[in-house]
Amino acid sequence: MKLQELKETVCRANIDLVRHGLVLFTWGNVSGIDRERGLVVIKPSGIDYDDLRAEMMVVLDLDGDVVEGNLRPSSDTATHMALYRAFEHVQGIVHTHSTYAAAWSQARRDIPAVGTTHADYFYRDIPCTRPMTAEEIDGDYEAATGRVIVDCFESRKLSPVFVPGVLVSNHGPFTWGSSVDEAVHNAVVLEEVAKTTCLSAMLNPKLPMNPKLIEKHFRRKHGPGAYYGQVDNSH
Amino acid sequence: MKLQELKETVCRANIDLVRHGLVLFTWGNVSGIDRERGLVVIKPSGIDYDDLRAEMMVVLDLDGDVVEGNLRPSSDTATHMALYRAFEHVQGIVHTHSTYAAAWSQARRDIPAVGTTHADYFYRDIPCTRPMTAEEIDGDYEAATGRVIVDCFESRKLSPVFVPGVLVSNHGPFTWGSSVDEAVHNAVVLEEVAKTTCLSAMLNPKLPMNPKLIEKHFRRKHGPGAYYGQVDNSH
Amino acid sequence: MKLQELKETVCRANIDLVRHGLVLFTWGNVSGIDRERGLVVIKPSGIDYDDLRAEMMVVLDLDGDVVEGNLRPSSDTATHMALYRAFEHVQGIVHTHSTYAAAWSQARRDIPAVGTTHADYFYRDIPCTRPMTAEEIDGDYEAATGRVIVDCFESRKLSPVFVPGVLVSNHGPFTWGSSVDEAVHNAVVLEEVAKTTCLSAMLNPKLPMNPKLIEKHFRRKHGPGAYYGQVDNSH
Amino acid sequence: MKLQELKETVCRANIDLVRHGLVLFTWGNVSGIDRERGLVVIKPSGIDYDDLRAEMMVVLDLDGDVVEGNLRPSSDTATHMALYRAFEHVQGIVHTHSTYAAAWSQARRDIPAVGTTHADYFYRDIPCTRPMTAEEIDGDYEAATGRVIVDCFESRKLSPVFVPGVLVSNHGPFTWGSSVDEAVHNAVVLEEVAKTTCLSAMLNPKLPMNPKLIEKHFRRKHGPGAYYGQVDNSH
Repeated sequence: MKLQELKETVCRANIDLVRHGLVLFTWGNVSGIDRERGLVVIKPSGIDYDDLRAEMMVVLDLDGDVVEGNLRPSSDTATHMALYRAFEHVQGIVHTHSTYAAAWSQARRDIPAVGTTHADYFYRDIPCTRPMTAEEIDGDYEAATGRVIVDCFESRKLSPVFVPGVLVSNHGPFTWGSSVDEAVHNAVVLEEVAKTTCLSAMLNPKLPMNPKLIEKHFRRKHGPGAYYGQVDNSH
Repeated sequence: MKLQELKETVCRANIDLVRHGLVLFTWGNVSGIDRERGLVVIKPSGIDYDDLRAEMMVVLDLDGDVVEGNLRPSSDTATHMALYRAFEHVQGIVHTHSTYAAAWSQARRDIPAVGTTHADYFYRDIPCTRPMTAEEIDGDYEAATGRVIVDCFESRKLSPVFVPGVLVSNHGPFTWGSSVDEAVHNAVVLEEVAKTTCLSAMLNPKLPMNPKLIEKHFRRKHGPGAYYGQVDNSH
Repeated sequence: MKLQELKETVCRANIDLVRHGLVLFTWGNVSGIDRERGLVVIKPSGIDYDDLRAEMMVVLDLDGDVVEGNLRPSSDTATHMALYRAFEHVQGIVHTHSTYAAAWSQARRDIPAVGTTHADYFYRDIPCTRPMTAEEIDGDYEAATGRVIVDCFESRKLSPVFVPGVLVSNHGPFTWGSSVDEAVHNAVVLEEVAKTTCLSAMLNPKLPMNPKLIEKHFRRKHGPGAYYGQVDNSH
Repeated sequence: MKLQELKETVCRANIDLVRHGLVLFTWGNVSGIDRERGLVVIKPSGIDYDDLRAEMMVVLDLDGDVVEGNLRPSSDTATHMALYRAFEHVQGIVHTHSTYAAAWSQARRDIPAVGTTHADYFYRDIPCTRPMTAEEIDGDYEAATGRVIVDCFESRKLSPVFVPGVLVSNHGPFTWGSSVDEAVHNAVVLEEVAKTTCLSAMLNPKLPMNPKLIEKHFRRKHGPGAYYGQVDNSH
C-alpha cells in the first residue's frame, strides 16, 4: 500500500522532470525511499518518459538487490544507494544532466552563493566534487560516484540538509530532499541558480558576495525562525 | 468595491508574472495601493500561483498592519511599504527573481542605458543598490531593503518616475508604475533589457553610449512632447 | 482592391513577428509598398498585436502624408519612407528590437559573415550604422535614422538587394525584401544569425572567415546560377 | 514496399527535426539508405516542413542519379552520398544549422569531450573539419564537403561509428547513425552537448577533462559490456 503510493510518487516525479525542462530523452532519474522497510523505489533504465507507469518502477533493498519489478533499475542506482545510506534524512533523490548545472560540472566549479535565490534553498556554495580516479572509474563506478559525493560533504563539513545538492565533476547534478517532490523542486532551483550565476559570472567574474545576506535568506525559509510562506518550514 | 477591484487587479497581475515567464514557483509578488484610503493589497506568502484567488489577497495599512485577509502577506511586504511611503506617485510594485535582472543584481552592476529599448522606459542607467550592512540585515531586513532602494535614488538624484525600477544588490529587481499593470509591464521590459544588454556586454565590454539618443527615445513616449502610440503618454 | 490585399498582408506580417518571437508588446512594425500608386501601408503606433485588424492599417504617400486611416502611423514611419525612396527594389520593411540583433546594435558591431546560414541570405557582413549626431536626433529624428542607413550602404558600397538588413547603432535591426513576407523572413534569419554569431564570438573572438564559402552559399540561393529549392530564386 | 517504408521514415524524421527545435524554415535535411538496393531516400530541396509528404521524398542511386520523384533533391545530396559511400555502417544522415552546433562550426573549434552527456554518445571530441579550399568550393562543392568530412575522420583516425557526427567548418553539423532515427537522435544530442560545453567554456576556458570517465560512459551504453537501458546496445 504505502509502497504502491511511493511508486506512484516516484513515477510522477520522473515525469515532472520532463515537464520542468530538465531532461532530454531518458537522461534523468528520480528515486524515493521507505525508511521503515529500507526499500528504495527507482525509475527503470532507459525507458521513454511517455511510456513510464508506476508498476514499472523497480524496488530494491539498501544493498541494491532488486526486490520487485521486471525491469533493470536506472544505471545510476548504486549512486542513489550510497547517498541514502550516508545521508539519513534524505527521502528522495534526483539526478539530471540539466544544461546549466551540467555546464558548471564540466567546468569543475562550485556554484558560489552570491544571491538570495540561491540562499533561499542552499546555505553554502553548491560544491563540485573532485575528479574521480582511474581506480574508482574502473571499479564499481556508480557506487564510487556516491562515495565521492559523500566525501565531498564530509571533507568540506557541509550538511546535506542545508546544501541539498551537488555537482559531480565532468558529469552533472544530484539533488535530494525530505520528500521526493522536494528533491525535484531542488533540481529545478539548482538549474535556475546555475543559469543566473553563470550569467553573473560573465558580467562580473569577481562574483561579489554578501555572506550575511545568504545566511538571512536561508533562515527566512528554514529552521525555527522561518517566516516565509503559510506553513511550517522548520526542517 | 474599489478595494475589491484592486484585489482582482493585484491577483491577476501576479498571475501575469508567470505568464510572462518572470517567476518560478512562488518567487515573485505584486502589490497595488489605494492612495485615498492608504491601503495596500498584496499577494499572500508562498501560495502557488495556480491556487491564487482575489479573496486571498492581503490588505494592509501603510504601517504594515493587516486590515483584511486570513493569510500571511508576502515576506517582502515591508519593502513594498517603504517604497509606497517614499515614492508618492507609485501605484503598483512588482518584485521578481527574473533570470537576467537577477544576474545583473548578483554581479552588482547597474544596467547601462545603451539602447532605445531601455530608453523607451528608463531614462537613465537602472541602478544596482549598495550591499546591505550586517546591521540592516540583522534588523528589520525587509524594511531596510526598501530604505536602501530609496537611499539609492536620493543619493544618485534619480526620479522614480523616470527610472521605474531598481536592482537590489545580490538579490533581484523591483519595478513600479503609475498602475499595477504598468509595474508588471516594466518588470517584463527590465528583464528584456537586462538580457539584451548582458549580450551586448559580451560582444563589446565598453558598451558605447549615445546619451542624446536615450533622451530622445524617452521623450518620444513620456512627457508633454510624447508622440508614440495613440493615447496620451504625458505622465 | 490591391490596396486592400496589401493591408491584409501587412497586418498578417505584423502578427507573424509575434509568432516568430521577434517582438515584445508593440515593439515592432512592418510596412509594404504599392510602387505603382506610390502608397505605403504601415502598422498604427502602439496598438496591441491582439487587436490589430487590416482596416486599422495606415496608408501614406511617399511624402509621409496620411491618405487613409484614422490612427496615427508607427512612430518609425519616416524611417520606412526614407528607405523606400532610396532602395527602389524594396517592397516590404520590418523593424524590430529582437534580442540578439539589438545586442549587436548596442555593441555597435557589424555581424561578420562567418557562416553559411548568414551567406544563404546576406552576401556581406550585416553593417551597424555610425552613431547619430545630436543634430540628427534633435531634428527630424526618424527621417534621419533612414538617411543614416542609406549613407551606411552608400559609403560602404553595399547593395540593399544583396544585404537585406542593417543594425541601427544603439537601437536595433531593420530588414527588407522583394515582398512583405520576405522582409519578415529576413528579420527571422537576422535574429538567428545574430544569435549564432554572438555565441561563435564567445567561443572564438577571432571569428575565422572563409569569404569564398560565403560567396558560394549566397550564389546557391540567389541569381542566375541558383540551384537551391524548387522554384526560381533569380532575384 | 521496403522503399515505401523508408520514405515514410525519412519524411517523419525530417519533421522530427522541427519538433526538436533544430531547424528554422527549410534549413535541414534527413536521408536514409537501403543498402541492399543501393538506394538513398532524401528530402526534396526547399519544401516547407508543413507540406512534406512521404511521396515527395526523392530516391537516388549512390551515383546521385534520381531514380524516383518529381522534385529536386536537397541541395546537400552530394554530401550525403559521399558519406554513405565512405562510412559503410551508416544507415541515416542528418544535416542541420542548429544554433549551438553552428556556433562551434563558425568558431572552427572541435567540441571537446568534457562530460558524460557527450561521452554517452560520442567517444572522442566532435571534430570540426578544416576550411575548404577555393578549388573545392568552386568545383563540385557539396561532394567536396563530404570528402572533407571523410578526410577529417581518416586523418584523425576517428571511427564514424564511435563518433557519429562532425562540424563542417563555417557551416554546421552532420550526424549519422545505424538507423534514420538514431541519426536524428544524435543531432539532438549534438546540439545539447554543443550548448552545455559552450557554457562550460565560458565558465572555465581550460575545460578540464577526465578521459577515463569519457571512456567509461561510452562503454556503459555501447559495445559488448554495455549495461545502460533494457535492450541490447552492442552496436
